[in-house]
Amino acid sequence: MAEKEENEIIEHHVSEEMEKKRSRTRDSHSFLESATISEKEGHSSTQSSHRLLAYSDALISIIATIMILPVAHTKIEPDQELQESLQQLLTTKIAVYLMTFLIVTVAWAAHIRLFQVIERIDDFLALLNLACMMLITFLPYTFSLMATFPEVPLGILLFCACAIVIGLIQAVIVIYGFGHPYLLNDHIQISENQTFYKRHILKIILRVPAFCFFAGIFSFIFFPLSYVLLALVIFLPYITQSLKWCGNKIVGRQEELPESMLLYSYHPSEPLSKERVEAFTDGVYAIVATLLILDICKDNVPDRNEVKEKYQGSLIAALSEFGPEFLAYFGSFVTVGLLWFVHHSLFLHVTKATRFMGLLNTFSLACVGGLPLAYQLTHEFTKNSRNELEAIQISCVIIFFAGIFQLAIWVTALFNERETLHPYMRYGGREHAFMFAKLALYPSVTLTTFFLTCILSKFSAQIFHLMQIVVPFAFLALRVLVSVALSLLKLVFRPAKPMHNALEEDESRLPFNDVVS
Amino acid sequence: MAEKEENEIIEHHVSEEMEKKRSRTRDSHSFLESATISEKEGHSSTQSSHRLLAYSDALISIIATIMILPVAHTKIEPDQELQESLQQLLTTKIAVYLMTFLIVTVAWAAHIRLFQVIERIDDFLALLNLACMMLITFLPYTFSLMATFPEVPLGILLFCACAIVIGLIQAVIVIYGFGHPYLLNDHIQISENQTFYKRHILKIILRVPAFCFFAGIFSFIFFPLSYVLLALVIFLPYITQSLKWCGNKIVGRQEELPESMLLYSYHPSEPLSKERVEAFTDGVYAIVATLLILDICKDNVPDRNEVKEKYQGSLIAALSEFGPEFLAYFGSFVTVGLLWFVHHSLFLHVTKATRFMGLLNTFSLACVGGLPLAYQLTHEFTKNSRNELEAIQISCVIIFFAGIFQLAIWVTALFNERETLHPYMRYGGREHAFMFAKLALYPSVTLTTFFLTCILSKFSAQIFHLMQIVVPFAFLALRVLVSVALSLLKLVFRPAKPMHNALEEDESRLPFNDVVS
Repeated sequence: MAEKEENEIIEHHVSEEMEKKRSRTRDSHSFLESATISEKEGHSSTQSSHRLLAYSDALISIIATIMILPVAHTKIEPDQELQESLQQLLTTKIAVYLMTFLIVTVAWAAHIRLFQVIERIDDFLALLNLACMMLITFLPYTFSLMATFPEVPLGILLFCACAIVIGLIQAVIVIYGFGHPYLLNDHIQISENQTFYKRHILKIILRVPAFCFFAGIFSFIFFPLSYVLLALVIFLPYITQSLKWCGNKIVGRQEELPESMLLYSYHPSEPLSKERVEAFTDGVYAIVATLLILDICKDNVPDRNEVKEKYQGSLIAALSEFGPEFLAYFGSFVTVGLLWFVHHSLFLHVTKATRFMGLLNTFSLACVGGLPLAYQLTHEFTKNSRNELEAIQISCVIIFFAGIFQLAIWVTALFNERETLHPYMRYGGREHAFMFAKLALYPSVTLTTFFLTCILSKFSAQIFHLMQIVVPFAFLALRVLVSVALSLLKLVFRPAKPMHNALEEDESRLPFNDVVS
Repeated sequence: MAEKEENEIIEHHVSEEMEKKRSRTRDSHSFLESATISEKEGHSSTQSSHRLLAYSDALISIIATIMILPVAHTKIEPDQELQESLQQLLTTKIAVYLMTFLIVTVAWAAHIRLFQVIERIDDFLALLNLACMMLITFLPYTFSLMATFPEVPLGILLFCACAIVIGLIQAVIVIYGFGHPYLLNDHIQISENQTFYKRHILKIILRVPAFCFFAGIFSFIFFPLSYVLLALVIFLPYITQSLKWCGNKIVGRQEELPESMLLYSYHPSEPLSKERVEAFTDGVYAIVATLLILDICKDNVPDRNEVKEKYQGSLIAALSEFGPEFLAYFGSFVTVGLLWFVHHSLFLHVTKATRFMGLLNTFSLACVGGLPLAYQLTHEFTKNSRNELEAIQISCVIIFFAGIFQLAIWVTALFNERETLHPYMRYGGREHAFMFAKLALYPSVTLTTFFLTCILSKFSAQIFHLMQIVVPFAFLALRVLVSVALSLLKLVFRPAKPMHNALEEDESRLPFNDVVS
């Protein structure tokens, strides 16, 4: 059937071409020309898809991070123990935040997968995609209903309804894409078994609405089962894949999938569009960096009458009340900015992002999303209280994990350096050491701060502020520091020559392997 | 002096090359290789600058739109007349929103101008840029202080301090960039009068901190003068340029500036990076589309106890209370999404964005930023009240202007179609008519709705909702509608042949003009 359709399309194109030749001055001419130009040029149509995806990434990144707002706006009484309120927070709101982040990023990964198959778009697909986006932005709300009222089926029903419609829209996009093959990925476009691809992709996409449909039905009968079904639909492909991967590692069999087969395989090295990972990351970092200024602009402009009565008309006195908020803003902006800077440096050297790297990136971003909350907490309590100490330590832990996951991306990339890294960034060399130093700076500094605040708990705030001030300068001086460290190392290890040999070996290995493989 | 510096750099490069040849196995090797690779490839370093700018665009677009939040969160009593509260709103908060939007976009335009000169970045510039971003995100707050306490010099002092530091950072970026010429725009890099460029750019950049310094001083002596100075620094280049442009139009002299001289000229056809205009627009549309869901996720999850007591445990009853909010969300998301879609279609055909198009785009975006507020208002009042009618009419007006400014971008592009549009989109033809229909759909529909609500004020809400439902389908069917309309037109005008002739003439004109010019 698909072949027949294809033939029809080819015939249609041929007849269009003939029509074009026949009547050059008819007004349909410029339409035809535009279609052929945009098809031939490639630029304008690729651009088109690029911008739609950038907009989608921006929307999804905002939605993924906003569930931190209900957490951040939970009022904590200054005299209350943070431990208690934290436990209260932890049980629902932070869990909702993390689960929302996870679910939205799963939806985002599905969106990437879909638009790696369909590389060019037209108006119809753009509008369908917007409808899909609207439903994705509604997911966090249904999820927070599920978390607040776990025993009422309404939340899960709404969630399932959204997921079903999203799945159906994606299926329509795939069917439409295969109906207009010039919209497809070049690989699939020239492939002979297009029908196989279509069936394979549709099967995977439609699995989600099918599962959600049953989950929706079970929510009336026995709702815990529907939660199990939903967890299954999200994690099943990953679990089976990781089991297979582990099995292969144990047995030692190394199955190499052909490039095009990696689409929709859920393989850990399935390619993930590097541009989109970057766009999504930029979106999350940008919204997180500005979350606190959003609050400041909304709440911290003092009232005219209040200033007159309470502060005898002194605006400076009124503003100094908000001092801690401003400090929290600058602190979180600097930290988020520098973590973005590290991420930016890292992805400059990465040539291809894999699904596993994307997963680590998601974990890192989930930590980053919690940063404004942590910074807000650090300034909410009286000086030298137990609460303040704990808030500072939580901030350190969050920054530490955000940094560690970034480091993990780098280590993962190094494991497949041939595919994922620029040649000049592979093992060894000064640039390599520099990158490592950049990635290790935040984890090591926050770890030091954490232990220092444990020992010198009285000066915890001072230590924390000192860290915030020192870190940006450390980044500025990092290249110099690394050069000094490397030359010191060279001085120390000069008698033992093997280091140089290792480098040479590393270089000679490269072309040799190329010949073998 | 600059020449001497350049020579030094060239010498430095040469010595590096020689050193590289001399000692291939030293560990500095991979660093050199990386530098030369990234310089030669162009790709990795361009990418670098690209992502920094994308992140900056995301930050600036968020900051530009958030000042609508204090407006949106102003509580309006349901029994109060909207007219009054609107006047109250209009006087300060909406003015603050619009002025912030303007100032932030001016800062953004300066940022574009700067990074059109400096096309490649390194770590130092990335960190400087982050510092600059932090200050830009703080501008809205200082501005809202200025608006709330116009007679206290603190707000203007803070604003001036931020502007001075931003200006100085930009000057450092320029000096650093000209100190490392491989970071510069290719045009300037090969140009002979680099020193002239450097001086010209520095003069323009440092004008801002100088003016702000005096404005800061005058804020102590006679503060209205400092407002005048600030207005001057923002509008002076535009005023002089538009006066010059008008003068030239009247006299008829057409001065054609060389391409490279257009940088930092404030000329209406000064190029504005199309990618950055798109990225900024995407950011604004994305944050505006999600502004209402941010509120919904934060405020509209009902409380467990409240549901139990007030609604006898019925979650659906509790949620139906929030029905109007959900409707407002979907309405604003659809409208913003479709306006983005029109913008996306428009910029697909644009090859080069000019400063004047950027200005019109800013006006359109400022209207779009007000949409969530307007939609929120439509559902805040009792049915068939005078307030509801006014809120609906305000929504129509805002959408109308957002659409009209997009149409104005298109018209401006058509005036210089040779430079700004793809060849297949120039005057005449079906694709041209289709684009025009897309751009005209929202203005015409909202205008109709506006007048219908004036006449049938009793059914205003129904008419408004009908419009919201019809418009997406109108976009889907637009291509068909345009084809039908065109063939109808052809049928009507068939006897009068000149239309065909005009088309032919139009086509024949193109190559002829090419020969002449």
